[in-house]
Amino acid sequence: MINRVNLFKYCYTSNLLQSKNKMLNLPKVIRFLLLTIPGFILLPNVALAEVGTESQFIFNTFSFLIWGALVMWMCAGFTMLESGSVRTRNASVICLKNIGLYAIASITFFLIGYNLMYIDVNGFIGSFTLFYGSSSDEILLLSGSDELGEAVVSSGYSTMSDWFFQMVFVATTASIVSGALAERVKLWAFFLFICVLTAFIYPIVGAWTWGGGWLSDMGFQDFAGSTIVHSTGGWAALAGALVVGARTGKFRQDGTVKTTPPSNVPVVTLGIFILWLGWFGFNGGSQLALGSAADAVAMSIVLVNTNLAAAAGVLVALIISRPLFGRVDLLSVLNGAIGGLVAITAGPDMVAHGWAILIGGIGGLVCSLGIRILEKLKIDDVVGAVPAHLFAGIWGTIATCLASGADILIQLIGIFAVGIFVFFSSYIVWAILEKVVGCRVSPNVEELGQDVAELGIEAYPEFVVMPDRDELK
Amino acid sequence: MINRVNLFKYCYTSNLLQSKNKMLNLPKVIRFLLLTIPGFILLPNVALAEVGTESQFIFNTFSFLIWGALVMWMCAGFTMLESGSVRTRNASVICLKNIGLYAIASITFFLIGYNLMYIDVNGFIGSFTLFYGSSSDEILLLSGSDELGEAVVSSGYSTMSDWFFQMVFVATTASIVSGALAERVKLWAFFLFICVLTAFIYPIVGAWTWGGGWLSDMGFQDFAGSTIVHSTGGWAALAGALVVGARTGKFRQDGTVKTTPPSNVPVVTLGIFILWLGWFGFNGGSQLALGSAADAVAMSIVLVNTNLAAAAGVLVALIISRPLFGRVDLLSVLNGAIGGLVAITAGPDMVAHGWAILIGGIGGLVCSLGIRILEKLKIDDVVGAVPAHLFAGIWGTIATCLASGADILIQLIGIFAVGIFVFFSSYIVWAILEKVVGCRVSPNVEELGQDVAELGIEAYPEFVVMPDRDELK
Amino acid sequence: MINRVNLFKYCYTSNLLQSKNKMLNLPKVIRFLLLTIPGFILLPNVALAEVGTESQFIFNTFSFLIWGALVMWMCAGFTMLESGSVRTRNASVICLKNIGLYAIASITFFLIGYNLMYIDVNGFIGSFTLFYGSSSDEILLLSGSDELGEAVVSSGYSTMSDWFFQMVFVATTASIVSGALAERVKLWAFFLFICVLTAFIYPIVGAWTWGGGWLSDMGFQDFAGSTIVHSTGGWAALAGALVVGARTGKFRQDGTVKTTPPSNVPVVTLGIFILWLGWFGFNGGSQLALGSAADAVAMSIVLVNTNLAAAAGVLVALIISRPLFGRVDLLSVLNGAIGGLVAITAGPDMVAHGWAILIGGIGGLVCSLGIRILEKLKIDDVVGAVPAHLFAGIWGTIATCLASGADILIQLIGIFAVGIFVFFSSYIVWAILEKVVGCRVSPNVEELGQDVAELGIEAYPEFVVMPDRDELK
Repeated sequence: MINRVNLFKYCYTSNLLQSKNKMLNLPKVIRFLLLTIPGFILLPNVALAEVGTESQFIFNTFSFLIWGALVMWMCAGFTMLESGSVRTRNASVICLKNIGLYAIASITFFLIGYNLMYIDVNGFIGSFTLFYGSSSDEILLLSGSDELGEAVVSSGYSTMSDWFFQMVFVATTASIVSGALAERVKLWAFFLFICVLTAFIYPIVGAWTWGGGWLSDMGFQDFAGSTIVHSTGGWAALAGALVVGARTGKFRQDGTVKTTPPSNVPVVTLGIFILWLGWFGFNGGSQLALGSAADAVAMSIVLVNTNLAAAAGVLVALIISRPLFGRVDLLSVLNGAIGGLVAITAGPDMVAHGWAILIGGIGGLVCSLGIRILEKLKIDDVVGAVPAHLFAGIWGTIATCLASGADILIQLIGIFAVGIFVFFSSYIVWAILEKVVGCRVSPNVEELGQDVAELGIEAYPEFVVMPDRDELK
Repeated sequence: MINRVNLFKYCYTSNLLQSKNKMLNLPKVIRFLLLTIPGFILLPNVALAEVGTESQFIFNTFSFLIWGALVMWMCAGFTMLESGSVRTRNASVICLKNIGLYAIASITFFLIGYNLMYIDVNGFIGSFTLFYGSSSDEILLLSGSDELGEAVVSSGYSTMSDWFFQMVFVATTASIVSGALAERVKLWAFFLFICVLTAFIYPIVGAWTWGGGWLSDMGFQDFAGSTIVHSTGGWAALAGALVVGARTGKFRQDGTVKTTPPSNVPVVTLGIFILWLGWFGFNGGSQLALGSAADAVAMSIVLVNTNLAAAAGVLVALIISRPLFGRVDLLSVLNGAIGGLVAITAGPDMVAHGWAILIGGIGGLVCSLGIRILEKLKIDDVVGAVPAHLFAGIWGTIATCLASGADILIQLIGIFAVGIFVFFSSYIVWAILEKVVGCRVSPNVEELGQDVAELGIEAYPEFVVMPDRDELK
Repeated sequence: MINRVNLFKYCYTSNLLQSKNKMLNLPKVIRFLLLTIPGFILLPNVALAEVGTESQFIFNTFSFLIWGALVMWMCAGFTMLESGSVRTRNASVICLKNIGLYAIASITFFLIGYNLMYIDVNGFIGSFTLFYGSSSDEILLLSGSDELGEAVVSSGYSTMSDWFFQMVFVATTASIVSGALAERVKLWAFFLFICVLTAFIYPIVGAWTWGGGWLSDMGFQDFAGSTIVHSTGGWAALAGALVVGARTGKFRQDGTVKTTPPSNVPVVTLGIFILWLGWFGFNGGSQLALGSAADAVAMSIVLVNTNLAAAAGVLVALIISRPLFGRVDLLSVLNGAIGGLVAITAGPDMVAHGWAILIGGIGGLVCSLGIRILEKLKIDDVVGAVPAHLFAGIWGTIATCLASGADILIQLIGIFAVGIFVFFSSYIVWAILEKVVGCRVSPNVEELGQDVAELGIEAYPEFVVMPDRDELK
């Protein structure tokens, strides 16, 4: 290939510079320059291989946008997972809760959440200012001012692409709560809690960590949010489950547990696949850059580890299913994927992929066991959100010590600090809501189903549905 | 960091040029060049930060492809929204209509639509030529002719990536029609109408605007198609609804309206999420470029506004739901997202995100109110396509005057011109179809359901379905 | 625009070089250089328009990742297609099979499959080594060694991005098998077969072709895998269908065939849309590069042809449906999309798009006819996987001779060689599994449904389901 580097070498090594023709009465150096300069202009510039700063800016920004769109898609995954998991009589209201929580998260994070999390973080909390928007340089660039291009480009990515990517993460946290509390939490109490969670609780956890606060300063490692996103959601859900209580009849007086199989298995499965796909965005985009070969290499590794961990979670849950539960338990297997995904999320960027299989596999195990532990504790979590997001999230955050050399003490401090803060602040919010508006639907509404009672609609109005066997007694 | 710019500064400011060693008997300028030239070759070129034209070409093309793929995905969203909204007896035929209309739009837009819309537009209409394809330069480039790279690159993006992105838009327009006319329009009449809509009606509207025709010359603003795509679909649907008439029993003789709840709420919700995700491609890709920092900044803003508008549409529809309808109406809330999305589509590129919330929120309101208005007018629109796409589309096109400084007069001219053209041409086509093949299924087919009557299939053949209460009377 | 090329031209053609001012006592060549060099540094470098090697690396890698994610999404498509196609009593187990097969494919391809397919292929098979991972250069680059950037970049794309893209392909092959054998193959026998298929059978076919083995040397053309992926899956499914046998009652003693309509049509349709979307990744990503204008042009053409072929498959299946089957057969139309997609997969990169319509249309026809042929042969393929993937795959591989100038003899050798190898090796594996663990569920389980019998779960436990009419007799 003829290119600049080769031309350069050629002119140095060829006899052109020594030849005796007329042109070469010029000094040797000038002859050389004369020979090479046109080549600089006309030949491809393969030696100048690094990515230009503006290209970097585009790569980084586009990475945020496209992966962020996939993370938004996870909301659809949670919705399907949850609406297929609940009984048909509550399948509509869980759809409303999910689209509502995403809308709320979008607005609150724009109004206040992002600023609390990222702007002028003083160690514990960012700025209490309203609204967020493009930088003034960006606005001037858009209005045609060419001179500001360099200032804009030097920030690495566009302001709002980062906001978009961060916003879809807070929505994920909120999604975790809806599943655990399904079938008995009041619609409006739930929405009020989501407002607080997305505007304050999650952003404060975020300020400590990704916002550059005290946990970040200590060296707490959580690549894409095993603790920051998933455990936060899990703790908030757990607090809610304690305040709201179990569904009527879930834990029988004779100590047995009423099984509540998913009402629509294909829809649950679809939800899991959506989440798996969206997780490529969740973890891949958390590389936060795509402007260099190193970023592209790292992002590839992240995707592979994410996929391997989910696969291992599925297989471990599948293999232990019969010994543990007496049968192949599809819901455990599906949740195993989530357990693997949550577990790898704290450190998906390691080059030894065997670790991903181990971490994800244990994530699947933790998730399967966790479901039973919650049942022993008589905590009612409809979709297994606490085992999948909280328990596997804690495991994943610890696992970074093995796989990525994180400091176990610091990781534990992070896990406990986030846990204590989120659990107690959530508990207080749920308790206040319980006092003020009441968190739990009436027994009558619970028996009738929230769909008919709260929305005046049925999820599947034309299908003949069997009455609940327990209620027939 | 050592790079070219720094080298340049270093050589200028260092003592190298003044030192007295032997080499420096050369003229000063040559000494300088001698010192800097190798650096030009060997050091990274950070000063030359702008995106190269070939990289721009790739960014622009990839943006069309990836966002276009998401817009194609919207077809699945419409299919789910519609098949979940109709009664189970018509859920199969709406699936067939949707996959069929996408197939038809793909072929007709290739055969004639694109040329009518974009090639040699004379103000009102483009070229009546068959087929579309890659440029001859592109074909030569693919066959290995390196010399044509520059000619290809200068076009900014690959010919067929643009075609792909435009094609999925016409499919969106067609999708709007199927929902409004569900449960009573004949399969083949519908497909024939879609042929005309995608081959002629939509491309002519497109020629006036994005094709560079008279509305474009006037300064009509419609970023991604509130009017061009969504209102066009809405007008075509409205004309069809008038010709085909309401479903039997929808408007009772006593003046009451029969509610027709969605038969499968989770599937409707999935459809809304698919549309929301796809809209990132719809609006984001409509930036039409990703080859500069300014484009990346603008695309980020577009995605954020799109998301905020949808969220506001959801929340407004949620809040007004009880005062307006007496209960939290899930379908209104879901449609509120569409209303918000359609409303922002005319101008999602403004930097003040508060406008997006306002525009989207009003879009949700318009959509909720519009459903009632249509019912008052005894126009039967099964999924609320006319309120969501036509009414909110009109609102969004007007709203650009507030948010993006569009001229209200020109916007109104555009809205009316497109409305009159699309409504009347569609009405004529529907009327001709009514005469020639008949648009409406027989009362018997309507009662039995189109699935069994036209396809010999049931959507859920194993489930026991309840008879329609009205029909039992 | 002022840029380097223009500056270069300007200096050559302007009078600057001839002017008599003091500076120009310098030799003319130096004057020229003096005038142009600063411009080289300060002006945008539009002449140097080719994509830098690091940008190429990022484009190529990102293309693998994002398109690969869409191919992973196809697994969800197969799951929906299959779980909607089977009777409700087997809808859960097919979900488990599908998520399980994807997990298995992920792990086996990491453990051994990729190495067998791509590493040191000796003509027939690659390396029997365990595990796969990033290159040592990549690992050093990630650990901060800047010097290795060039070595990494010279490989064109990141190692694991390629692995990810290849892995999702083997999962597609495995997905094809599950649908054909639904409703009667034992869960564990199926998973054991998938282990062999993904670890050995598919990688060996891959080694012959994409791995650079003997078929590749001969010039066998199969752009994205009509034969390598889809026919391989089809042959494996066919062998399984023969060993496992037809579902009880499918072929009645009086020679009639029991129709088995899909139990959930909207879910089947969703599956088809997911596959269609995913196929943009499947074929588009198979360009294997995005680092040049030529690649971007080719990828655009690939997406357009993929879409046109699918559309033509739908329309041909729609048009021939009534003459062939006496009614508009929705399942045939949906399968027509798959037939069109599979058919175009061997050669979607041609510039004459009319061929795509023809190839896809015939693919739809082959698929529709194939379903009837299989029924005549009393081979029970629940979802029509063999017609859609094997028959249309053969057609597509042959069609490259017409459209892309492939050698018919070589294409036939490839089709037969792959067919004989995959069919017989699969048959042997199925036969061994039949001896050792038994492939087929007991008649009792088949009647009861695998969901309840093998998983202790129902897919739709609350819905009242009608008994099978045949079983009532």
